[in-house]
Amino acid sequence: MSANRPNEDGLIARFFAPLAGEGALGLKDDAACFAPRPGHDLVLTTDALVETVHFLPEDAPGSIARKALGVNVSDLAAKGADPAGFLLSLALPVTWTEEWLSAFAVGLGEAARDFGCPLLGGDTVKARGALTLSVTALGEVPAGRMVRRTNAQADDVICVTGSIGDGALGLKLRNAPKWADALSAEEKAHLADRYLHPQPRHRLARVLRKYAHAAMDVSDGLAGDLAKMMRVSGVSAIVEADRVPLSPAVTKAVAVEPGLYDLAVTGGDDYEILCTVPEKDLDSFLKEADSVGVVVSVIGRVVQGHESPVFRMRNSERRYDAGAFSHF
Amino acid sequence: MSANRPNEDGLIARFFAPLAGEGALGLKDDAACFAPRPGHDLVLTTDALVETVHFLPEDAPGSIARKALGVNVSDLAAKGADPAGFLLSLALPVTWTEEWLSAFAVGLGEAARDFGCPLLGGDTVKARGALTLSVTALGEVPAGRMVRRTNAQADDVICVTGSIGDGALGLKLRNAPKWADALSAEEKAHLADRYLHPQPRHRLARVLRKYAHAAMDVSDGLAGDLAKMMRVSGVSAIVEADRVPLSPAVTKAVAVEPGLYDLAVTGGDDYEILCTVPEKDLDSFLKEADSVGVVVSVIGRVVQGHESPVFRMRNSERRYDAGAFSHF
Repeated sequence: MSANRPNEDGLIARFFAPLAGEGALGLKDDAACFAPRPGHDLVLTTDALVETVHFLPEDAPGSIARKALGVNVSDLAAKGADPAGFLLSLALPVTWTEEWLSAFAVGLGEAARDFGCPLLGGDTVKARGALTLSVTALGEVPAGRMVRRTNAQADDVICVTGSIGDGALGLKLRNAPKWADALSAEEKAHLADRYLHPQPRHRLARVLRKYAHAAMDVSDGLAGDLAKMMRVSGVSAIVEADRVPLSPAVTKAVAVEPGLYDLAVTGGDDYEILCTVPEKDLDSFLKEADSVGVVVSVIGRVVQGHESPVFRMRNSERRYDAGAFSHF
Repeated sequence: MSANRPNEDGLIARFFAPLAGEGALGLKDDAACFAPRPGHDLVLTTDALVETVHFLPEDAPGSIARKALGVNVSDLAAKGADPAGFLLSLALPVTWTEEWLSAFAVGLGEAARDFGCPLLGGDTVKARGALTLSVTALGEVPAGRMVRRTNAQADDVICVTGSIGDGALGLKLRNAPKWADALSAEEKAHLADRYLHPQPRHRLARVLRKYAHAAMDVSDGLAGDLAKMMRVSGVSAIVEADRVPLSPAVTKAVAVEPGLYDLAVTGGDDYEILCTVPEKDLDSFLKEADSVGVVVSVIGRVVQGHESPVFRMRNSERRYDAGAFSHF
């Protein structure tokens, strides 16, 4: 380490201690102390991000930080859990600079505030290769109320939040594809931003745990993640392809190049919530989702069976059997 | 990924699901669900390990797994916390093989059983560079009873478990140094094993929370870690250098090459517990430590002041001001 850069303790004190939540003990100890509220379970999730796999070297450090926390908070939200805190494990390449780390910490602090998810602890080590981050996030649910991935039931209505495909097309956009010429500057900016900055739907958590039979966050593509949720629940699904919510930007891109629909529903990086809700609760669910400011679309229905889900197009139908994007 | 290797879901089902604890929900969900026992706080710690920084490429996969979990359980133990479970984040280099991963999972499962710390969840991603692991471990303490690093008090007795310097000399041994010629095969095997396989002192957790004012695990060298604990507690320390517990192997190595004493007390990878105990409780502490099978040595005393700790030698004294080993 060069002489003008702080050692690990200095780095923690300078960049990370200001972000520390109550249980972090000012990051002066080796461990955090946390007590969930009485009558609550903890929900725990961990997601790792690797440069070039989950983000790109040219991405702003604050964006990388926000994404690392956001994808974990998205997982919590899908389980009906309110964010409670996180631990960060950071493997920094030898080329790190104070400027980079300072911007990273600022972005992390802003995201932590936005998501209501304070820093509890962490570890910083030397990377042997690219920047690698791992976040473990903790959330709380009333005891026994975590929303499972395995509980979708035949006749449930399938819903998804926000819009699908923006992240995947936002990533593609970096190669300046031909279809991008049809998009306005605002539309291109929208897609790019959606790849960079997942919007975890944590405000939906309490609504999900009230109504959803099953839920997961869409990180590896809608088609593949739906197939996964149906498989572990022992059911199948029919999706009305034209009801999958697309942003104006993706709608325009698909109009120019129809094959992009497949990318939209199989690409990764949506970080929306996919859930199934019993028909009788659908109206209440949609109303309460609206009241917390989360847009929800009905896209299909759970059915008996073990086949992979069918996407019904106008004149055809399609199964995306091997369509799941994987970060692995 | 080559066709004959499983995808991430297949990999989880095959290698990791058999290790899953109750809260892991068979690793079929996106998150784990965990409720600490009523009246207990959770203690949370995370430690990352990077190939060539924390272990070596030629180390057996099962040893790497055991070390990744062991160093985290060691942190929990030092906080007086009983292990409750862990999450694993694994960034695998493109060269991974099923044989490697299978051996890794076997070692992880054995360590999890030995430490009473089941797998709760995880994430597997592609590395861009060397193998990088991050473990987040959870422990339980009765509410308010986590042993802090910041609470050492003047006149406390300073104790350390096991023996110091084995890990550091075990690592040096790989370069076939001259002093190694003086050691028996058993002594060399002992040192090598101590570098590879930390022995977390989790059985001491309940004794520590009963008697210790302050504690931490020794991972970055006794001298540096003691200095850190004294600094955050606002005190100083006097260590009787010849009371620092050395194994027969380290004792012999130091006899051959006296400078190795400094390496023993400043090198990393001990994973022993350093703690301070009020004089009045010392006998009870030592007796109960003995009853759980953990050897404890008294090495010095906490004193007023803000200087870094003094190590008293026979005819001199020494402060290891910049002596802390760092994995960063």
